[in-house]
Amino acid sequence: MSNRIDLDAIVKAVQSVLPQGKDFIALHEPHFNGNEWTYVKDCLDTGWVSSVGKYVDKFERDLADYTGANYAIAVVNGTAALHICLKLAGVVQQDEVLVPSLTFIATANAVTYCGAIPHFVDSELSTLGLDPNKLDKYLEETTEFKEGYCYNKKSGRRIKAVVPVHIFGHPVDLDRLLDVCIKFNLELIEDAAESLGSYYKGKHTGNMGKLSSLSFNGNKVITTGGGGAILTNDETIAKMAKHITTTAKLPHKWAFNHDQTGFNYRLPNINAALGCAQLEQLDGFLGKKRILANMYREALAEIDGITFFEEPENATSNYWLNVVLLDEPNMALREEILEALNDKNIMTRPVWTLMHKLPMYNDCPRMDLSVSEDLEQQLINLPSSVILGDSHV
Amino acid sequence: MSNRIDLDAIVKAVQSVLPQGKDFIALHEPHFNGNEWTYVKDCLDTGWVSSVGKYVDKFERDLADYTGANYAIAVVNGTAALHICLKLAGVVQQDEVLVPSLTFIATANAVTYCGAIPHFVDSELSTLGLDPNKLDKYLEETTEFKEGYCYNKKSGRRIKAVVPVHIFGHPVDLDRLLDVCIKFNLELIEDAAESLGSYYKGKHTGNMGKLSSLSFNGNKVITTGGGGAILTNDETIAKMAKHITTTAKLPHKWAFNHDQTGFNYRLPNINAALGCAQLEQLDGFLGKKRILANMYREALAEIDGITFFEEPENATSNYWLNVVLLDEPNMALREEILEALNDKNIMTRPVWTLMHKLPMYNDCPRMDLSVSEDLEQQLINLPSSVILGDSHV
Repeated sequence: MSNRIDLDAIVKAVQSVLPQGKDFIALHEPHFNGNEWTYVKDCLDTGWVSSVGKYVDKFERDLADYTGANYAIAVVNGTAALHICLKLAGVVQQDEVLVPSLTFIATANAVTYCGAIPHFVDSELSTLGLDPNKLDKYLEETTEFKEGYCYNKKSGRRIKAVVPVHIFGHPVDLDRLLDVCIKFNLELIEDAAESLGSYYKGKHTGNMGKLSSLSFNGNKVITTGGGGAILTNDETIAKMAKHITTTAKLPHKWAFNHDQTGFNYRLPNINAALGCAQLEQLDGFLGKKRILANMYREALAEIDGITFFEEPENATSNYWLNVVLLDEPNMALREEILEALNDKNIMTRPVWTLMHKLPMYNDCPRMDLSVSEDLEQQLINLPSSVILGDSHV
Repeated sequence: MSNRIDLDAIVKAVQSVLPQGKDFIALHEPHFNGNEWTYVKDCLDTGWVSSVGKYVDKFERDLADYTGANYAIAVVNGTAALHICLKLAGVVQQDEVLVPSLTFIATANAVTYCGAIPHFVDSELSTLGLDPNKLDKYLEETTEFKEGYCYNKKSGRRIKAVVPVHIFGHPVDLDRLLDVCIKFNLELIEDAAESLGSYYKGKHTGNMGKLSSLSFNGNKVITTGGGGAILTNDETIAKMAKHITTTAKLPHKWAFNHDQTGFNYRLPNINAALGCAQLEQLDGFLGKKRILANMYREALAEIDGITFFEEPENATSNYWLNVVLLDEPNMALREEILEALNDKNIMTRPVWTLMHKLPMYNDCPRMDLSVSEDLEQQLINLPSSVILGDSHV
């Protein structure tokens, strides 16, 4: 069986990159080596732990500075961020929203929180993310314009927006996608939950969409415990995002008036404090993650039947989670490889089950998803914590 | 004007209770005097800050122990807790849910997150909360039974649940309300966001509803920065609450499968750590708050035209926010009193604007709300932080 992957060789190659003598290597664990203690203790000492406080303001300013977005609004997690992005982009009940089938569940869930329907689209091998060319052709064939909006001819529903996800930190082809958005009058909302520190043609991800979402969950490049943010370059939208994520309360010395049904999505100050300290270290983290990616690339280069996934052309990726792809003849061996590596206490995992295969999204509209279906079988994530790159500095 | 309140006397009485020489007296600020830093530092030192970790488990166990509920599920805030309570009680799109008009916005918002419609009910003077007798009579007159459920004759919609709120920590008349729930086949969901440490006939609030919600926002008796919890005595419901607040992911070594549209509502471990430390001090906090309430009662006893609000009969209240009520002839003076006290940097505030007066809830069904409308004019909250009681120990 000439195509059969050498399991032992893979395990040894991965082990060669990782520190020896550890009981367990996590997929991605946080790294606290800066001002985390100082800032968090300051919150406790001053009593400012909750919904307002200087770290929330600072974190929002720092995020805007870092990403180049005009405005950042800190919220309780990435799912909440995406929910509000969709809402403020004008997605309403019974709209359809184009999302990749190959993504974490939050992308599809956020659409349903708006009462809208996820419409699943395929990904491309070069980015792992949404394929704009395939989407263009698909929309040409299956949609029509009515009163300026794009309608799904089959369902009769309006298609309002498209949510590309920069999977594992790798930017999708945003320029090409933006063409498609303009052509079909779709709002572009970037799910940049995984791509803090990733750039498309020199511009930080999350800058091209009308709104974009970030995540600072414990498994992300930087963490606030739980947290997320909305990015936008539009001042009016930014103000509205702050307003509706903080219960839509109108400012007043003491009266409690709210002008619409808002949300309790604000990030607590203590979590923002963590975020400020983490963001200060982000460039260092990214450097170490790049070193780790380089180590994996080298170690895996000689092994037949698998390919280390490289950042797309025109992009600089944060390499949030490192990826190897099994060549097609070896796709059936995914579980065996996962078994072998996890048995050695090296945490590895497949990509998320495709959205359209989950019971609650099984009936949603979708295009041909054959590339996603192949990728689902081919893809394995390798341990990617900052600390793992540290040992090679 | 014999009925006219003596503004100076009120200001002096309130000042006599409060510490002298402070720039500003907040309405309710948190108090960190226990193991907060130890536990939070432990999170940072071990790297367990995020969605799983020992403090989440401990906080849930400790909350169950403290409240006497069989199960507690920690979530990201009280609004999220109530949203899930309603969902798991079976509230669906186009149901109506009975909620007091006199409450914080989260109570009504959580109903709308389910696609349901808040139906506003009146409060009673003895508890500040929902009036079960008035509700009973109202439902008698305006509803009918169809296939075992209570229907609003006018709207034709099912009335599925009732959400009493233990306003400012004062328990509503739960026994009487439970009778009404049984009579009309309504699910009882207690919004106990304000009543941690409050007891009704010796039983902790949040134990009588099918599900109940707690809040640990920064202004509450104890805080986790932002946080909340769901209480229930039903094992199946408890498991489902944990499941759908953690994205409805099915357990597996590495595969990501979700069996329904869940939510990202889990409380981060670092916030739970704060909660564990705060809960250890709760009994002490309650003692100090009771001392403060006693001081206010004494200081205000001699002033004509206002009444210090006492915990209801059969209840032990946490006195979360102390309340004075202006006698009816003096209701028009509320703003003047608020001006006078806030001018002295003593933060006081009126009750929240009644829900049915807000633009988004103006068209919702409602009963006669005359008691709530009077209370809205009569009620003033006084500074109630734990530390203020401390100075009198």
